[in-house]
Amino acid sequence: MRKIKIGIVGYGNLGKSVELGIRQNKDMELVGIFTRRDPTSIITVTEGAVVYHIDDAKKMTDQIDVMILCGGSASDIPEQGPLFASMFNTVDAYDNHAKIADYFNEINKIAKESEKVCVISSGWDPGMFSINRLYAEAILPEGSTYTFWGKGISQGHSDAIRRVEGVQDAKQYTIPIESAIESVKKGEMPEFTTREKHRRECFVVAKEGADKARIKQEIISMPNYFADYDTEVHFVSEQELQEKHSGLPHGGLVIRSGKTGLQEENSHTIEYKLSLKSNPDFTANVIIAYARAAYRLNQEGISGAKTVVDIAPAYLSSKTEEEIRRSII
Amino acid sequence: MRKIKIGIVGYGNLGKSVELGIRQNKDMELVGIFTRRDPTSIITVTEGAVVYHIDDAKKMTDQIDVMILCGGSASDIPEQGPLFASMFNTVDAYDNHAKIADYFNEINKIAKESEKVCVISSGWDPGMFSINRLYAEAILPEGSTYTFWGKGISQGHSDAIRRVEGVQDAKQYTIPIESAIESVKKGEMPEFTTREKHRRECFVVAKEGADKARIKQEIISMPNYFADYDTEVHFVSEQELQEKHSGLPHGGLVIRSGKTGLQEENSHTIEYKLSLKSNPDFTANVIIAYARAAYRLNQEGISGAKTVVDIAPAYLSSKTEEEIRRSII
Repeated sequence: MRKIKIGIVGYGNLGKSVELGIRQNKDMELVGIFTRRDPTSIITVTEGAVVYHIDDAKKMTDQIDVMILCGGSASDIPEQGPLFASMFNTVDAYDNHAKIADYFNEINKIAKESEKVCVISSGWDPGMFSINRLYAEAILPEGSTYTFWGKGISQGHSDAIRRVEGVQDAKQYTIPIESAIESVKKGEMPEFTTREKHRRECFVVAKEGADKARIKQEIISMPNYFADYDTEVHFVSEQELQEKHSGLPHGGLVIRSGKTGLQEENSHTIEYKLSLKSNPDFTANVIIAYARAAYRLNQEGISGAKTVVDIAPAYLSSKTEEEIRRSII
Repeated sequence: MRKIKIGIVGYGNLGKSVELGIRQNKDMELVGIFTRRDPTSIITVTEGAVVYHIDDAKKMTDQIDVMILCGGSASDIPEQGPLFASMFNTVDAYDNHAKIADYFNEINKIAKESEKVCVISSGWDPGMFSINRLYAEAILPEGSTYTFWGKGISQGHSDAIRRVEGVQDAKQYTIPIESAIESVKKGEMPEFTTREKHRRECFVVAKEGADKARIKQEIISMPNYFADYDTEVHFVSEQELQEKHSGLPHGGLVIRSGKTGLQEENSHTIEYKLSLKSNPDFTANVIIAYARAAYRLNQEGISGAKTVVDIAPAYLSSKTEEEIRRSII
């Protein structure tokens, strides 16, 4: 069997998780990791992985079937997405929800010209949660959809705390409010304020001699990040933060409740729930499945940008159509 | 807007639920209900629904975009599926898992010739559960998938009890065993016997003077249906059966747990859970969404049989691609 040849662009948490995830897929092989850093400075997680400078990628268009873009959505992907779409099939996890539609249009134009398939915004939200919001809404047109995140570490919120003066390190947990979830499950179709859906819990290491009362006040009153939530701040030692809060767990729930029947007398709920020990590992595994889809779609002569809802589920599976019908349907 | 013109073939529980469900979809209209019975004998659930004899369908190929086949999988669909595939885009809920692959091949050949799109085995299992088994397996290649059904009424098992001598009426609940679900959620990847995953609870109305001990013994020892399960039998009055067990609730859970990481140290679970007040209403709503997909695919010049995993999620939504990217992704 000819294996699907994968390249990884960017070698942070997500890139490392993709490197590990590829090993679980027998129909794929890792050709190389592409970095802006000096390739000789990189120690890879797995033995034998080859590291190239990102500028070398353009010479390897005939050696790689799909480039997996593992950079950040703030500045890396807006630059790398268009560049790599002009040369390779790509998959990314672009998660700036407000700009996805515009990003799609930009990538679509480039990918049509280069005759490649570029899957944007895969992962779990956007990604699997998007798919589940769409299916649930299509099946229960009369209803309400809710997305809850957590319990899990939010990197963006942790970073925001670290920018507060006097903070040495911090981790922030986003926690869904159980009573809100229960209300949705009962089919009550409640309307929530931001504060009623999630709360935030922060574990903060203060610098020697820093004013903890001021740090706490700055955190809980921070606009966008914390002001609209009930936020708890716990000061802990560097050691405790390392021991108890060094993982990257996450997860969440998409839930829709809706009504059917002559008088809308029948309630239904559809729930999709993720419990993830490692956010980057799971995100990587979703992206890898979409790399398979991107390769296959392109093999069929298709080109352009795709989101996860534009791709039939069967393209993600390593099984043949016949095997799927016999063992999964 | 031109509405999608729907026909319903077969007017039992599912047909009635489709009739109701279409009203929730503004882009569709019901053209007619097709029955083997005398059309004048049918009283429809909604006012103004038109009933035709099933033999009249062949004269109406230019008036109907998609025929929704609501007959039973035992004898109706194997006959009506091929017949209607030769004339119309169709959707069915064929649920004989062991024969789906062969049924697909038969319908595919006919639909390719008639240049129609025929979606087979939609609903929730097969259907939404199939999709979720596929996605979960593709995302977590190293793991185990479990399907639990219930708590809900199984029509097949209720019918089986009614065939026992001395039974006047009966309802059977399939109930998942909570401790089994908990074990799966913990990522223990257990292996279960049939008895360890579900139990069965039967509410039976005995005929006047019937031997209840014998009836109970016949039920709990019935091969395939009950012998492999822990089964409780409760004898109740006709009135109690009507009052407490006349609904058709159902639901269930697809859950996969899997591992990632350098040493497979990270556990993840993906759960898809349905809680349904009315099994036929929910099944109908899934089928209706796939009718939209069948129509659109055929408009794009596509033909042949499709299962739910062969169809991109976006085809189910009444929203435009742009609306989906702006509001759902």
